[in-house]
Order: sequence, then C-alpha cells, then structure tokens
Amino acid sequence: MPDPDTASPRRASRRQFLLGGAVAGVGAVAAVGLDALVASARPAPAVAEPAASPLHGSETVPFHGIHQAGIATDAPAHALFVGLDLRPDADAAALRRLMRTLSDDAARLTQGRPALADTEPELAVAPAKLTVTFGFGPGFVARAQGEAPSWLRPLPAFGIDRLEPAWSDGDLLLQICAEDPLAAAHAARMLLKDARSFAQVRWWQDGFRRAHGTVAPGTTMRNLFGQVDGTSNPIPGSADFDRLVWVADGWMAGGTGMVVRRIRMDLDTWDELDRPGREQSVGRTLSTGAPLTGMREHDEPDFTAVNGLGFPVIPEFSHVRRSRSDDPRQRIFRRAYNYDVAPDGRGVSESGLVFATFQADIDAQYVPLQQRLDELDLLNQWTTPIGSAVFAIPPGCAEGGYVGETLLD
Amino acid sequence: MPDPDTASPRRASRRQFLLGGAVAGVGAVAAVGLDALVASARPAPAVAEPAASPLHGSETVPFHGIHQAGIATDAPAHALFVGLDLRPDADAAALRRLMRTLSDDAARLTQGRPALADTEPELAVAPAKLTVTFGFGPGFVARAQGEAPSWLRPLPAFGIDRLEPAWSDGDLLLQICAEDPLAAAHAARMLLKDARSFAQVRWWQDGFRRAHGTVAPGTTMRNLFGQVDGTSNPIPGSADFDRLVWVADGWMAGGTGMVVRRIRMDLDTWDELDRPGREQSVGRTLSTGAPLTGMREHDEPDFTAVNGLGFPVIPEFSHVRRSRSDDPRQRIFRRAYNYDVAPDGRGVSESGLVFATFQADIDAQYVPLQQRLDELDLLNQWTTPIGSAVFAIPPGCAEGGYVGETLLD
Repeated sequence: MPDPDTASPRRASRRQFLLGGAVAGVGAVAAVGLDALVASARPAPAVAEPAASPLHGSETVPFHGIHQAGIATDAPAHALFVGLDLRPDADAAALRRLMRTLSDDAARLTQGRPALADTEPELAVAPAKLTVTFGFGPGFVARAQGEAPSWLRPLPAFGIDRLEPAWSDGDLLLQICAEDPLAAAHAARMLLKDARSFAQVRWWQDGFRRAHGTVAPGTTMRNLFGQVDGTSNPIPGSADFDRLVWVADGWMAGGTGMVVRRIRMDLDTWDELDRPGREQSVGRTLSTGAPLTGMREHDEPDFTAVNGLGFPVIPEFSHVRRSRSDDPRQRIFRRAYNYDVAPDGRGVSESGLVFATFQADIDAQYVPLQQRLDELDLLNQWTTPIGSAVFAIPPGCAEGGYVGETLLD
Repeated sequence: MPDPDTASPRRASRRQFLLGGAVAGVGAVAAVGLDALVASARPAPAVAEPAASPLHGSETVPFHGIHQAGIATDAPAHALFVGLDLRPDADAAALRRLMRTLSDDAARLTQGRPALADTEPELAVAPAKLTVTFGFGPGFVARAQGEAPSWLRPLPAFGIDRLEPAWSDGDLLLQICAEDPLAAAHAARMLLKDARSFAQVRWWQDGFRRAHGTVAPGTTMRNLFGQVDGTSNPIPGSADFDRLVWVADGWMAGGTGMVVRRIRMDLDTWDELDRPGREQSVGRTLSTGAPLTGMREHDEPDFTAVNGLGFPVIPEFSHVRRSRSDDPRQRIFRRAYNYDVAPDGRGVSESGLVFATFQADIDAQYVPLQQRLDELDLLNQWTTPIGSAVFAIPPGCAEGGYVGETLLD
C-alpha cells in the first residue's frame, strides 16, 4: 500500500492555490497565469513508485509554486541549515546569476534529476521529499539594493542569550530538508559548489526528527528533553496559518520571515528535575503532550483551572502559559529540528534544537513572544540560545523563473 | 504489507546458530544450553506492528546471542561511534560494574524498553532496529588484566596517514546503530550517563547511509564520491564470513577485531576528475558498480582482460585491483558509514567515511591489505585517513549475562 504521507505534497500545493488571493500581486503569478502555475506546481503525482512498492526514495515535493517548499510542507527527518556570507565583489547582477543557478539546481534535484553538470548523478535519483528553501539576510537585500522588510535585522538582545558569532547571522540561507541524509548531503554539495564564487559558508547546522515510517504520520515531534514539541502550531493550509505566515504584498508577497535560533538544551541539569517538575515547567504531560488540564495532546489548556490548594494547575511560569499571548497575532509557525553533537568534555551531551520559525512579521509576532519568554519561562533554566539569524524568505517561482526574481529583476 | 527487511534479524540470528561449532568453547553457550540461547536470541518476532501497518519504528534486532549485534546484522541508516577513555581509578571491578550496567541498558533499549531510570522513557519506545556494540581498546584489556589479542594495538603507521589524536585510539567503543536518529541519540545519552563515572568521551563520529525504505533492501551503499561501496564484502551468514570475522577461541571466541578509520574524501579535487578517470581509479563503472570487465555489480573482475592497445581493462593502480589479494585470508568485512560535516572554510565540503571493518585477526587480514593500498592505490590521491582506532569486540551474551563477561569474570 502507498505510504499515507505521499498525498500530502499534492494536498499542500492545492491548498496553497486556494489562498491565491493573498498573493495576487506577485508578478510571476500574473504573468504565467494560474492554470500554468497549477500545472507546474503539480508536475507529476508525488509517488513515482508503483503502489505495490513501499519505497519512498522517489517521492518528491514540488519546487515551483507561489510559496517556496520547506515551510508549509511536512517536515521530513533531516534538515541542513547553511548560512553563507556573500563575497565582497558580489553585486546585484552576480546575485541574479547566483539565484538563477541555485534555483535551477534546486528545481532539478528536488524532482530527482541531477543538477546541471552534476558530478555524482547517481546520488540524485532518490530525493526522498527533498526541499530547498532560500532565505536572504539583511546583507543580501542591501547588496541587491532592494527594500528590506522592517523586521529584517538581528533580533533585539535577550537576557537569556549567549550568542556565538559562529552560529549567528549570515547573508544567504539554504534550508535543505529530506527524508534521506544522503539526498540532503548531495544537494548541499551541488548548491555550495555553484555558490562558491559568490559566497562562503558561515555556519552549518544539521538537525533530525524521527525517521520516515517510524511513527505515524502527523505525530508531533519530540525533542531531546522527551517533550512533545510543536503541538499548538498553526496548521499549514488553514486561514490561520496563511495569515500568520505569508507576507501579503511587495516583493515579499507569498514569502515569509524566518528566524533560526540554535537553542542549547542542558540535559545534564534537566536530569536533576523529576517528572512532575518537568511537567510543571512546560505545563504539559510528558507521556501524551496533553496540557496539565487536559487528557489529549490537542486539548486546549485551561489557564483558569486551579488545584485543591487554589494554585493554577498550569503554573504561571510554565512554558505553555508564557508562550501564549492574549493577542492572537503574536503567534509563529515552528519547524524545529533536534541536534545532538559531540560533547565538549564538560557534560555527557551537547544537544538542543535548531529552532526554525516562520512568520510574516518578525517584529510583530516573534519578538513580543520571545520578550515574554525572556522575562519568565521556567524552561529558560535549562535552555540557552547560542545562535540567532533572521532571513527574508522570498516567494516561490514558476517554472522558468527563479527564487529572488521579485527582488532582483 | 510488512517491510521486506523485517525478517532479516531473525534470519541472521538463525544463521548465527548454524555456525555454533565455531564458538563451542564459549562458556556462556555451554552453560545455558543452545535451546535457551536460541529462545533468548529470538524473544519475539521482529515486527511488533500488525501486518497492515508500514511503520518500522518498533522493529528490533535481538541483543542477546553468541555474537554482538551490529556486525553481521544489516547496517541501518544511522551509526554513532563513540570512543571513550577510562578514568584513572577504573579497575577491573569497576569495569565489571560498568559493562553489567551498559549491557543492561543496551538489552532494554534495543528491545524498545526504557533503560533503568530512563529519564526520557518516551524516546525509547521506537528503537527502529537499534543495536549497541561494545569494543575494548588496549587500555581496557590491560586494566582488566586480561590477555590481549596480539593484534590489539594501534595499526602500524602508513605513509598516507595524517592521523589526528582527536579521532584516534580509545579504551572503550560504543557503536550505536539504528534506522532512526532519535533512537540512536537517546541510546547514546543513556549509555554515556551510566558510563560517566568510569569513562569520558574521547571522540564521537556519526555516519549515515540511505534512509530506511528509500532504496530496495540489499542495495549496496554509495559513498559521497558517488561510488557503490562494499560490493565484494563477505556475506553475513556464509562460511566465508564466519571464518573471516569471528574469533575461534579464548575469551574472544564469538567476538571479532574492529578497525575504525576516519577517511577524509577530498570531493573538491575529486571533482577535477572526469567520469572515465573516476572509473579507472576505482576499477568499477560508476552507474552500476560493475567491474570494468563486467556488466553487473557482482560480476567477478577479470584482471587479465586487456583493451585494444594491450593495456589491462582494470588498471593495475585501481582500487579494486590493489585491494584484492591472492591470499584468500587477507579479506575483511566492511560496515562503513558516510560522514558530512561543516566545511572548515578551505573547501566546499568536509566529507568522508567512517570506515568500520570487522575481521578475526587484524594483523593477518587488515594490515597486509592496507599496506598494499598504502603502496599504490589511485584512490589515495583523494582520500586521507585522519583517524584510526582498534578494538577487540567481545562475544555477545545470553540473557542475564553481560558483554565482557568472558574477559572480566
């Protein structure tokens, strides 16, 4: 039987089209017409394998579309986030060549075809839902002499931050996701080879979630604290999601804002906390992810409920309480990955989250949320942001176009 | 329908039992009787999911048995190799406690059960073919006051080596493999927490192969050069494999010798080579992995074949020619993984192989092979060993026993 996941890229792209109104001002859409764009966004059924085969290596996510892939599309098992610095001589014309080339690479590789002049074409044939998402840092937009969104700058300093330059900032982001680590590694190399005359790697972060097929599709991920992580996320395709994530106008229409934070999780001190303490700190039951006032993961938390002593069942200092604003606009879409790397000798583990979030307006959505958590969130005792970067994610492109054309053309 | 892979752990353990003669001297086997050991090695069908579900997270590989798992068992997508240094005060009694504890952790975690005092039990429920394999370096065996195999020492220096201490040697090896990166990360943390009073991490290398279900089971892996890698490996369960891999007597009976080499692959200079040049250097066709004298991957190379000019079709300097000895004992079992980490600024990629090999006698099998490749192998131009470690892999244990008991009891 086909994998239950396989229909989702098609569903996602169809959903994206139902939202076409929000991005009607995008030049590419107007130029090629919606029908052609629908066709290009759905070039073939997502599953090339016959139904009898359980193999998922040939599954693809469309590259072309109103939005870039890798945002509203399901998060696969592996992600590689690469931040690059532009070389001093890369001017707007060079950036145009760069983004044309990288878009062509991504359009081919995500569909299981080798890049032009691919030196290892055999590594391209099983993309396993490969997506490539491009993001522009403040330096990129300035070099392109474009109008930067007001929020495109480093986040304000937070008291909990211990940022390291080696994990922060950057002019160009490549977010490469796939169900298969070899497909992601090959795509990274092809893209970085084509980028090398224009930019060099500043930082490189890889992350993981559960492997494809190990847990039921739609299961919320768990982080290395053991917590269900991402429950109250807006649902891709919902009106809520579209309003919160996609920018409505200008060259960013159909694009979004992205924050990439590297959040170290101190598992060694977390271990000193018992299970009730862990559940109080987050406000959810560890086993199910349900709020402490509920039974099931997606039950709405009841912040008014009190226990026999009159104290709130979900503590005021808990993460779920502190991250919830009364202002419905102060919400973000999280698409985080776990990391786990060699310990540095001080502890048993060096682990955490590559906390990637998408939101239309970082200043209006992300910053107030993070300020509230900076003031008070019991989880801060065991988590430390050590990297931070902000990117403008331009809209997607139609076949023949390239990502960044609304800025660079 | 069930995944085609799922039967293999059971097949593998049955095969191991057909070879019982080779390890008849092992105390554990004699003590518990073959029937009991067969029962403990096959505690349950490998697939706990109903046949209708394609999920593979609950698949398990038996921990108990004559041999440790993670050697003859299929190599899953992810591997974590951790080398530890013993603390100065860890004596033989401490090592016994350590290996009892770690064996208990591994016995539980590999079967999808939380470790004793597991702080994140929810991360243990989908082991996805998790295996844990323990290896003892020279320092461990000396501390245990045991008799070291003659080959248990650093490999002789090779001309091509550029070894870095940060990737070399170590007293205790944990090889943690799984189809799922979260299962492997959780197991690593549980084991390292229990080891921390006795040992500290010296090096940590993670590696990957194709994700489960992306390519057909039994497909030989490709490395990041794009080469089919591992074609002429002995086949687990064959008489050939058993003779080459398992030690026949002493406390190591049923165990093996392991070499872990970190081999850097210079993809940037490899790129300067065209496809025919790449195929000549390895002696195989890139697309199929077939020898240059054959059509299919597993065709036997014909080293006598010459082309129209009278030159050998498979060059004398090619890797496949140089790695083939006339002495049938000079063979090894490879179980390598790809690595791909942040480039250091000099190049586009920092990639290579965690080249893990198993052989009964490292001096008689691995060393002469490596000496021949050190003298001449065109691939040396693009590969550099930067780490090297040697371990004695003790036999497996029965339920109630522990890995290392034949050395420590």
